[in-house]
Formats: sequence, structure tokens, C-alpha cells
Amino acid sequence: MATYKSIIAYDGTAFQGFQRQAGDRRTVQGVFEQALRALGWQGRSITAAGRTDAGVHARGQVVAFELAWRHAPQQLTQALNANLPPDVAVWWTAEAALKFHPRFDAVRRRYSYTLITASVRHPLRERHAWRIWPEPDVTAMECIAGQLMGRHDFASFGRAPIPGGETVRNVFQAAWISDEGSLWFEIEADAFLYHMVRKLVAAMVKVGLRSIEPQDVLGYLKNPEARWEGNIAPACGLCLEEVIYPEWSSAMIAQGNIV
Amino acid sequence: MATYKSIIAYDGTAFQGFQRQAGDRRTVQGVFEQALRALGWQGRSITAAGRTDAGVHARGQVVAFELAWRHAPQQLTQALNANLPPDVAVWWTAEAALKFHPRFDAVRRRYSYTLITASVRHPLRERHAWRIWPEPDVTAMECIAGQLMGRHDFASFGRAPIPGGETVRNVFQAAWISDEGSLWFEIEADAFLYHMVRKLVAAMVKVGLRSIEPQDVLGYLKNPEARWEGNIAPACGLCLEEVIYPEWSSAMIAQGNIV
Repeated sequence: MATYKSIIAYDGTAFQGFQRQAGDRRTVQGVFEQALRALGWQGRSITAAGRTDAGVHARGQVVAFELAWRHAPQQLTQALNANLPPDVAVWWTAEAALKFHPRFDAVRRRYSYTLITASVRHPLRERHAWRIWPEPDVTAMECIAGQLMGRHDFASFGRAPIPGGETVRNVFQAAWISDEGSLWFEIEADAFLYHMVRKLVAAMVKVGLRSIEPQDVLGYLKNPEARWEGNIAPACGLCLEEVIYPEWSSAMIAQGNIV
Repeated sequence: MATYKSIIAYDGTAFQGFQRQAGDRRTVQGVFEQALRALGWQGRSITAAGRTDAGVHARGQVVAFELAWRHAPQQLTQALNANLPPDVAVWWTAEAALKFHPRFDAVRRRYSYTLITASVRHPLRERHAWRIWPEPDVTAMECIAGQLMGRHDFASFGRAPIPGGETVRNVFQAAWISDEGSLWFEIEADAFLYHMVRKLVAAMVKVGLRSIEPQDVLGYLKNPEARWEGNIAPACGLCLEEVIYPEWSSAMIAQGNIV
């Protein structure tokens, strides 16, 4: 019996989120554990770096599990993929330290959020992006993104994983990148509050569309007692890109192993 | 009653192709005609520029139909979109000449084919791309693409729309473009034979993976009596990008109107 860690990618569209749930709701954890069971796994539960919500995608999720496996970890990747549906894939597997925990050992996470700007529906892109119209003022959105960096109490934009838990987070990177009709937001922090990225994106889009002022958003950062009562950006635009550990990260390994 | 032309886009994954079929098979034409019927249309059939196969996508398909419509064409676009499922959208509508026919009036078509190179499945990209591994020799593939340009008898790589029909086609552009892990093939011709792009792509990939020689592919172009008996590239990588008319094209208008 050894502990293994895997990097997994999924299209969240047809899942009720990552975390296994009672009943017959289809979850990423559920189908992954089913694939493991086909390989003789009898564990109680896998662990994961982030419990992504229903509809949220991942290119760099990290999971861990204990398994008695006689072959190389690369064969385990292949065996798991053979037992997983088309919307989930294992990109890499390695043996981990016995006590490795994908969430507690992670030091940073990086998410992306994709917007497309178009006046009409775009059937080929809206599975993985939020369509907005008219074109927003990207400069105003970039300005707020810049202000998100640093140490802030984000209580206005989400709740702690544990009731009453810490709501201060350190944001190391937050930026919008434009690319012909799409807008890509990247944010890296030590950890995130529940719904934090989607609420921040919704707030920045409101500024970009001039329905609120930049100061309104920055006000929430200064006054964490206030609650962002605006909308929340749709799940389909969000993707867990990378989970960062002291000596490796899921994106670093994925880039070297798959394209 | 007037004739209208629309530019439509669709994700072909959940369709049994463009053309309406007997029984309850879901087709793009079927859902489009159903949307038109909700607006009072009583026609027999819409016309289209290209009858894309099951699983093939489109960003620049052109359709035409007759309709009694009192409002502006832009309102017709909106009304159709309100009645179409998420995987089909109308991007633009205008009044057309009474006798306009999207297929017979077109002078050129442009298709794209997307490959991704990765050793493991990629759930977020394989809906719209063919995954191959190992990495192919792109230079060899580019070399063949270059040879496709010009006037050739493509009978080896597809059949004419009408049995016994003309198999000579004029290719105006054919090139591979690489972009970090993806390979994008673009081909523009006066018209295409049935399955022509997917067979050409399959042949070029075989050369790229060194399972056949470039001369083997070029041999088929010189000897149209021979038949390409190799595989056919999967439908999911193919997309109808543009239909070109003497004075306008679907991509030209789409670029100006949507992003």
C-alpha cells in the first residue's frame, strides 16, 4: 500500500461539482473513486486540493489516495484513464509521501476566468466562458485587478471554508489579459474563500460595463463587514489551473508531460 | 414574403449532421426549421451552403429561407436565437435576393481542422480537436499542404456530391499553423468532395507520424484512380469557417458583427 498523487483535468459541465454527494448526483470525486475501485481500491475517500463547484472546470486539480499497485505510476495513470469517462482525465501520477494531503500541503492556487464579448450566443465557446455584452472597459477592470494584489480581508466576496474561519487572503497575482474577443483573468493566492473568484469577476465586469464605480469595489476591500450583494459570475468561465506545493506545482508538471 | 440569409454557428457534437433526416435524429436543419416554424414559417425546407457531417462544427455556415417578417432582420436574428438550443446560434440575418441559394451562389469555402498533440486525454479540448501522439513532424505536413494548392483531381480523397460528378477542385489556400500544443489546418477551395478535408488530414497526419512517406500522399494526387484506403480524421476536429460569395463572406460579416 502506498500513497499516490495525481494531476487531473475535467470539463465540469456535466458534473454536480467535485465533491461526492449523497444520492445519484454525478461528481468528479464519484467517477474517480469508481475508476479506482475497478483497480481494487477499497478506501473510504480520496482527498483533493480544491472542491470545485458544479460547472467549474480544472486543468490542474490534484488528488491523493492510497492504493496497493504493483506497477509503475505511469501504468496507474493509464489504468485510471481507461476507467474514466471522456470528461475527466488523469494527466500524471506519482508516489507521494505517506502523509501527503493535496489541500493542506498546497501553498498557493491559481484560477482562470474566461469572458467572451459578443452580442450573440457563441455555441462553440460558451461551454468554457461567460459571454458579456457590450464590450467592457478593460482598463477599468485591469485597474481593480491590480488593487486586489496583496493582503486583504476578502470577507465581502466570499465565506471561509470553515464557519467563522479566517477571511484574510494573500493575492500574489491578479490580471486581465485580452486576446481578440476574449478576456482572460488570472488570479493566484495562498487560498480562496468560497465563491471568491466568481464574485470578484462579477464585480469587475460591473465596473467594466460602468454599472458601478471602481471605488465601489475597492470599498468592499476596505470594509469587509459589507457584503457584495451583486451577482456571481457563472461557473462555466472558471477553471482551477494550478495547485502549488513547496517544491512542485500541477501546472509545472502538466506542461512538461502533456500539452 | 421575402428571402433571408443567415450566418449560423453550431457545436456539432450533439447533432447527426446538418441535413434533416427521417425519424427523430437531431440535426441542425431540423432544429433551425423548428425555430422558424415558431415564427410562422410554413416552408418546405431551408437551403444551406454546406451539409456538414455528424459531429462537424461551424462558425460560418450560411442558410436561406423565405419568410413573411414585418420587423428588421436584426429582430429576426434575435427571435430565431430565442427559439434555438444552446448549441446553435444565428449570428446575422439580412434580406437576400429572391433567388439567392447559399450553396450554388458560393464561390469558395474555407474549413479548419484542429489537432492537439498530447500523450493523455484532454477533456477540455477534445470536443473540438483530434488528439494525436507522439508529436508529428510538422514540417513534413506543411510540405504536403503546400502541394495541395492549385488545381487537382482529388478523386482519391473523396467522392463528388453527385455520383459520377466532377472531382477536380481548385485549392487556393492550404497550410498548417502551430500554436503551443495545437496544430491548426486551414484549407480554402472552390468546393470540396465528400470527406475530402478529413481524408487529407488523416493522410498528412500519417506522414507526420512517419507511417507513410510524403510521396505516397502526393502519388494519390497524381493518380486519381487510386483510392485513399487509410483512415479518416474524426469529425470533431473539423469546422466550416467561411462561405465566400462574390461580394461578401460569412467570416467577413461575422468578424465585423460578433467576436
